Amino acid sequence: MPPATSPSAARLPTPLRGVVPPLCTPLTPTGDVDTRSLRALVEHQLVAGVHGLFAVGSTGETAHLSDARRRTTIRTVAEAVAGRVPVLAGVVDTSTARVLDQARAAADAGADALVATAPFYAATHPLETADHFRRVRDGVDLPLFAYDIPASVHTKLAARTVLTLAADGTLAGLKDSSGDLGALRRLLVELRAQGSLDTFSVLTGSELTVDGALLAGAHGVVPGLGNVDPAGYLRVYEAATAGRWDDAAEEQDRLAALFGVIEAGTAAGTGAGAAPGMSTGASALGAFKAALHLLGLIDCPATAAPQTPLNEEAVRSVHTALQRAGLL
Amino acid sequence: MPPATSPSAARLPTPLRGVVPPLCTPLTPTGDVDTRSLRALVEHQLVAGVHGLFAVGSTGETAHLSDARRRTTIRTVAEAVAGRVPVLAGVVDTSTARVLDQARAAADAGADALVATAPFYAATHPLETADHFRRVRDGVDLPLFAYDIPASVHTKLAARTVLTLAADGTLAGLKDSSGDLGALRRLLVELRAQGSLDTFSVLTGSELTVDGALLAGAHGVVPGLGNVDPAGYLRVYEAATAGRWDDAAEEQDRLAALFGVIEAGTAAGTGAGAAPGMSTGASALGAFKAALHLLGLIDCPATAAPQTPLNEEAVRSVHTALQRAGLL
Amino acid sequence: MPPATSPSAARLPTPLRGVVPPLCTPLTPTGDVDTRSLRALVEHQLVAGVHGLFAVGSTGETAHLSDARRRTTIRTVAEAVAGRVPVLAGVVDTSTARVLDQARAAADAGADALVATAPFYAATHPLETADHFRRVRDGVDLPLFAYDIPASVHTKLAARTVLTLAADGTLAGLKDSSGDLGALRRLLVELRAQGSLDTFSVLTGSELTVDGALLAGAHGVVPGLGNVDPAGYLRVYEAATAGRWDDAAEEQDRLAALFGVIEAGTAAGTGAGAAPGMSTGASALGAFKAALHLLGLIDCPATAAPQTPLNEEAVRSVHTALQRAGLL
Amino acid sequence: MPPATSPSAARLPTPLRGVVPPLCTPLTPTGDVDTRSLRALVEHQLVAGVHGLFAVGSTGETAHLSDARRRTTIRTVAEAVAGRVPVLAGVVDTSTARVLDQARAAADAGADALVATAPFYAATHPLETADHFRRVRDGVDLPLFAYDIPASVHTKLAARTVLTLAADGTLAGLKDSSGDLGALRRLLVELRAQGSLDTFSVLTGSELTVDGALLAGAHGVVPGLGNVDPAGYLRVYEAATAGRWDDAAEEQDRLAALFGVIEAGTAAGTGAGAAPGMSTGASALGAFKAALHLLGLIDCPATAAPQTPLNEEAVRSVHTALQRAGLL
Repeated sequence: MPPATSPSAARLPTPLRGVVPPLCTPLTPTGDVDTRSLRALVEHQLVAGVHGLFAVGSTGETAHLSDARRRTTIRTVAEAVAGRVPVLAGVVDTSTARVLDQARAAADAGADALVATAPFYAATHPLETADHFRRVRDGVDLPLFAYDIPASVHTKLAARTVLTLAADGTLAGLKDSSGDLGALRRLLVELRAQGSLDTFSVLTGSELTVDGALLAGAHGVVPGLGNVDPAGYLRVYEAATAGRWDDAAEEQDRLAALFGVIEAGTAAGTGAGAAPGMSTGASALGAFKAALHLLGLIDCPATAAPQTPLNEEAVRSVHTALQRAGLL
Repeated sequence: MPPATSPSAARLPTPLRGVVPPLCTPLTPTGDVDTRSLRALVEHQLVAGVHGLFAVGSTGETAHLSDARRRTTIRTVAEAVAGRVPVLAGVVDTSTARVLDQARAAADAGADALVATAPFYAATHPLETADHFRRVRDGVDLPLFAYDIPASVHTKLAARTVLTLAADGTLAGLKDSSGDLGALRRLLVELRAQGSLDTFSVLTGSELTVDGALLAGAHGVVPGLGNVDPAGYLRVYEAATAGRWDDAAEEQDRLAALFGVIEAGTAAGTGAGAAPGMSTGASALGAFKAALHLLGLIDCPATAAPQTPLNEEAVRSVHTALQRAGLL
Repeated sequence: MPPATSPSAARLPTPLRGVVPPLCTPLTPTGDVDTRSLRALVEHQLVAGVHGLFAVGSTGETAHLSDARRRTTIRTVAEAVAGRVPVLAGVVDTSTARVLDQARAAADAGADALVATAPFYAATHPLETADHFRRVRDGVDLPLFAYDIPASVHTKLAARTVLTLAADGTLAGLKDSSGDLGALRRLLVELRAQGSLDTFSVLTGSELTVDGALLAGAHGVVPGLGNVDPAGYLRVYEAATAGRWDDAAEEQDRLAALFGVIEAGTAAGTGAGAAPGMSTGASALGAFKAALHLLGLIDCPATAAPQTPLNEEAVRSVHTALQRAGLL
Repeated sequence: MPPATSPSAARLPTPLRGVVPPLCTPLTPTGDVDTRSLRALVEHQLVAGVHGLFAVGSTGETAHLSDARRRTTIRTVAEAVAGRVPVLAGVVDTSTARVLDQARAAADAGADALVATAPFYAATHPLETADHFRRVRDGVDLPLFAYDIPASVHTKLAARTVLTLAADGTLAGLKDSSGDLGALRRLLVELRAQGSLDTFSVLTGSELTVDGALLAGAHGVVPGLGNVDPAGYLRVYEAATAGRWDDAAEEQDRLAALFGVIEAGTAAGTGAGAAPGMSTGASALGAFKAALHLLGLIDCPATAAPQTPLNEEAVRSVHTALQRAGLL
């Protein structure tokens, strides 16, 4: 285990609380990282008051970014943040050796903490998954979050694995993007029972149930939609921590309506009436980026290849949604 | 559509609010419905103050009950309740013609409302699913709830289907056992936007997130664990409706800990140390019934064949959990 | 175990070899069983030389048929066949008690053997699944086939379960509709090693790989497409049993091309250009029935509610496919 | 499209026929690539007469290898082969930009052809998948095979995608590890109908149904078990191409029995009787490597972290299986 006084651990509150948006990665029309827009997006988030930032996560199109672009992104974010809030960095790759390479690069680029999934492509047994996290933690001296995202990894982290790795200090926290708030509730109850909740950070990645997750005891949220409306999520968080749960729910409802933009691409017809060929991910990320572009925060709304771009009708529907949400 | 003054509709509040436990079906050692124990369980629930009862749902082992036993169960519950609260009855079968036969039998046995899933075994398109619900509603003059339980049906109800059938009056409500509170949040926001929430009842079947579901605007809960501890769920519901959300969450936490009994069977070793061959369903339902037996409410803890019964170690762990929860 | 001289066992060859089509269930426009068309379809099959018939299986829309219609179908088939070949009957229901009721009804209606899946809706552990088959076999004195169809049941039968129940005589055979010929190959090798293949019948339900399955040692095939072209499957079978494997493959290729009709419904546009709302099952079964109607064998091509019917464009594409296959 | 006279295309037969084992990647006890053992394994394969070799595929533990180790592996194989047969290299990564980086490295290391999956982690629409393959093909001047492996990628390649990319020359072939021989049969029939089968290579990755796949028209096989027994697969292939299908099936049966070694790890008890915590992948790859070690071909049977190693009982069961198969 690393010494408690390591510089990076010092920069990461224990536990990490609040709103930690998973940054979109602005791209140029040719697919390079648009560092100017990225810095503007970071500043927009910091001005809104976020408690941390998560670079090159799923919302940051990590799966579509080359190693070089991942590195550029993390370095740009870390430099723009300049220590004002902790910067978490995704180290998403198929298994231990590859994640370790990602982790070293992320540490070198200035990340304050790392976020890793269980191995994917070649699925692992829970005991192998635990070994994976231990090896990653031992290999790079930065706090490590487990990233539970079954929609991408195709296995769900076992509660027993998380409880064990929270207790022995391997993991500093969990980013739960499973969408399974029931399982998260049980886990929170068990983490509390074993005395882990004061040091182990539990962040939900489900932007539609932040009020419920905070009520259940989660410390914070990593909302993809927070790219577009960080102030909204901060209002949910502040109302919740003040015990004004009805206010939190009302704001969450507004955000849930806005979240409908993720279907902008898949729902939009073309001129000829047929739906465009587009994954749900391309639609959601395309909508977030279209919104950031319409809000004047980034220069180009492009998502990384091979994702199909939003068509004009889809962009118009994003525009309408921003107006309805009072953002335009 | 049926006339608004039909007797059954009169017995069902609009919307249905509160705690509506899905009753376990007590069985004799030979597998028949133990009507004496069933009446005792019903009385236990009514004394606790539940707002409705749901007979022959998944928790009631509907998949394992013959038509004759389903009918006996519904009739026994309806007679024991005697109009004090509404009785919902599951009409779970593979497709329209078979569900209609179940629905006629349930109506004849005294149900006040019906709960049907989308077709399963042979999966349907959302438009076919909508047609299914319309045909069931047209065939039997009782309010109809859609039962969204992807773990059993292997498709999730499309939000568009629910919104359409809520708007046109086909469905009286939704029992959401999807475990996907994010999707339910979006649905609630859209139901409210189209003006359906005053008449269309939204009940969550997720017993671990009742506080969050109520905060999101759900009207009530259908908690399997409510068989064992209805008073606990009533406390969650009452705290929530009074705006005492922290109290609701604290009680929900206690129930989440108790919910661990569902693993009694699958986690228990035998004398030789190996885990018994047992489905997660048999473990959960066996634990609920073992608890009801230990609490003196039912005569026999048996689940229906071919489910493996809990072994002694598992029953002891249920006993311990009841003690910890303050129920024994 | 039943005495070896029971009349039903006598009617079922050991093992059952050859082509055993899973009969479509012709319906009237109002959804009743069209017994006249059903008898005509049976006669068409017997004239072609099939070795058995399988009534109310998945191709027979069993999930959409009421108990009464299932019974009518089995009785009509059994009477029309009049002992000329064995009649297998599906007893598809969610679990043991319900399957036993189906099994008694099927036996009473004249079935020579029963075909049951593992429990579904409430999934079972392999040991519970084995117990299920034992209870069904013990309850009704007819040979029992296990029906492995993960697309509908959502679990795959464990090889160990099949091997055990083949060895102890619980099962008379397997209808493998898993589409996993690799797993079937391993099972065949293990069945042979334990001496079961002389008495335990292995039938594939995969109509696209009959040549490969027979080469691997399967005894026969239950091809849905055999409703439309039984003679084609008989040619595959006869070529294979004569060792003329290239001929078998060539005929199988012709049938694989014809099998494309299953997409008639889902691929067809409407007048306005959009695809109709239709499940893959409705498309496939609608296409088989449209073909039988175009061939003059059944009076009405309707599938059971709530399946969307084929539109005119789809029916025309079936017509074209029949012409190309030399059937019209 | 690249000129037909490019050196690499010249080295790849059109179509590629025969046995192309996906090489295991021998490792040292510390996890580095054991290049000495790798060269010995390559020589063993070439002596047996294989028609090509596939480096850093799933059997080669590609998901567990760092970029550096992947490169070392491909270079070592290419140098050891020295042009005697074509060397295919896996370029497995989450999406286009990353696969392109892998592809450039593989080309530089001496690969003759590339094998890429559809994007994973972030799933794509079929049109996006097609765009992905086009971009990879355009970016690196080597023949490109599509790798259909839904167990790892969690989507299946659409037949329409393969047909289109075969027709327009983007893809040189398909490695089908879907296990769905029915879908492959339909695809082969459609590829033949559009005139692609003379130039587009179809290789099955299903080592249990090679006879059936060849009978269906596949050109060859990429058998993981071929690491252990290449001569066996060559006998299957030679018997099949000579029309001696019963001989092919008999040899395939022997190999199917040997294939049982993949369960060596998951089935083996420890001293205390419980099964070790181990993924199915770790068991299968551990068994292949244990066999290669027992056969004296590689120095160390270790699989890459975090895969649990086989215990002694498991290794003994591999030894027994090799003896039964006549290899020891």
